[in-house]
Amino acid sequence: MSDVTVVGTGAMGSRLATALLDAGLDVAVWNRTPERAFALREYGATPHESLSEATGASPVVVLTIPGYDAGHSVLSSVSPELRGRVVVQSACGTPDDVAGTERLVESAGAGYVEAVFLCYPEELGTGACNILYAGDESAFRRLSAVTEALGGATYLGGDTTLVNTYYALAITFYYAVVNGTIESASLARSRGLPLAAFNHAVRLALGNIDAVATDVAAHVHAGEHGDSLSPLSIHHETLESTAQLYTDHGIPDSLLHTMRDRAHAGVANGHGHSHISVLSEQRTDGAQAAARGAGEGDS
Amino acid sequence: MSDVTVVGTGAMGSRLATALLDAGLDVAVWNRTPERAFALREYGATPHESLSEATGASPVVVLTIPGYDAGHSVLSSVSPELRGRVVVQSACGTPDDVAGTERLVESAGAGYVEAVFLCYPEELGTGACNILYAGDESAFRRLSAVTEALGGATYLGGDTTLVNTYYALAITFYYAVVNGTIESASLARSRGLPLAAFNHAVRLALGNIDAVATDVAAHVHAGEHGDSLSPLSIHHETLESTAQLYTDHGIPDSLLHTMRDRAHAGVANGHGHSHISVLSEQRTDGAQAAARGAGEGDS
Repeated sequence: MSDVTVVGTGAMGSRLATALLDAGLDVAVWNRTPERAFALREYGATPHESLSEATGASPVVVLTIPGYDAGHSVLSSVSPELRGRVVVQSACGTPDDVAGTERLVESAGAGYVEAVFLCYPEELGTGACNILYAGDESAFRRLSAVTEALGGATYLGGDTTLVNTYYALAITFYYAVVNGTIESASLARSRGLPLAAFNHAVRLALGNIDAVATDVAAHVHAGEHGDSLSPLSIHHETLESTAQLYTDHGIPDSLLHTMRDRAHAGVANGHGHSHISVLSEQRTDGAQAAARGAGEGDS
Repeated sequence: MSDVTVVGTGAMGSRLATALLDAGLDVAVWNRTPERAFALREYGATPHESLSEATGASPVVVLTIPGYDAGHSVLSSVSPELRGRVVVQSACGTPDDVAGTERLVESAGAGYVEAVFLCYPEELGTGACNILYAGDESAFRRLSAVTEALGGATYLGGDTTLVNTYYALAITFYYAVVNGTIESASLARSRGLPLAAFNHAVRLALGNIDAVATDVAAHVHAGEHGDSLSPLSIHHETLESTAQLYTDHGIPDSLLHTMRDRAHAGVANGHGHSHISVLSEQRTDGAQAAARGAGEGDS
């Protein structure tokens, strides 16, 4: 009997298995292409050729198969073996995805936990990875050997669809920073700034960024964008000159160009005195029109 | 005699003057529209109607006039009064701007320091504001009463053009987070997520963001984008599904849509195995072509 079974041994599943092994757990593994699972034997994992054997080998089954549909059919094919176990699905599905799989697992007599790893595969088990879980609380508690081995656990409560929403927000900020780095590091390289100076500038820039996000979010959430000491008109001037700087250095399509155009439209629409959060209403207006055009106005 | 003269009393200049007054300094103020300077008398400032009197009143003169050209002509008009003083220009000019004003000030026998406030006006003097300075080191040392009063000082060395480069990088990350917040807070509102849960998700998302920026920047700086455990093809899948989520919630034009399109092109161009930093080369290729077309290939 193993402590945990990892189903799917791609980049994330393999790293998950070795992180759990490093923490001293007995780990069973299965993969559609068996070679990838058997390659983990040298790290101490127990590979299975049969999915139902792998499922039956542990009280906890973690799915790391990309794509929610693929995970759903894997679970369907072994539903008799699921009874009494806890199933963790890490593919991070939409609310509709989650509802179907949650129903399947619970009607098979197993506990269901939705999870997402907010990190690169190589960071799993290093303590640098935030992991979000949601689902039945008693099922989550039965995962303690796994959650302690991996660290960084946040339990969001019983609503499994929250995982996907949190993930979308995290991904948004991740790509905001990736894109900001790609663009600004290109600018810095073009201006001959050493990498250490770039990293110094980024640390200064990111120092206060929580407060910026909290302030903007409060305005968007409330839908209130009244007069600001740093009004949209001032942002428009800053965006105009910084977008020009990017253009002058061969980067004509940065985020700042997009923001400049939105700020320009906002000022032209009479929002020059407002908080920059007013751009969320513009977006929503345009989007509502687009959604109406496509006949799916759910915003 | 005052300790410091603030030239220009708009939102930033007024807040600067009161922050310096709060720290116990004697502050002279001047503004093109005198009423705005005289309004600061009630906080203890000494307003001047004459710019040359205001300039002569302190060993340190701080310009907070928006627009580099306006600051340059103000300084030109009082160049005989500048001898022996330190001039701080906070309008954050491009390298060409800075060169002209630096020459003017130094040939008038004054020390020149370029500065930028990386904060909203209301944060000046609260300790929440990073302030970057560059310029002659002895001139910077003579600012100590001002830099100590304001806090958050970083001295970048003698190259005054660095301030503008740092500012551009900081602004890029600022707007990356502002835009990320506007888009994701709109999504969260649309999905009914409470504001506190949103802020929780943002704190988790931003926890590891320094490391992401450092990793991406190192690849962009080196121009090396070799095989990655989290290759562009995986990013493409994530961006595809998250962009769709935004579309489904009435936001069809988010940064994730732009990133999805760029990742799609990168995969189509055979970069599916590369680090996501490879998008900087795509951008540069396109931009170089654009710059060549415009006859200004300085990238």
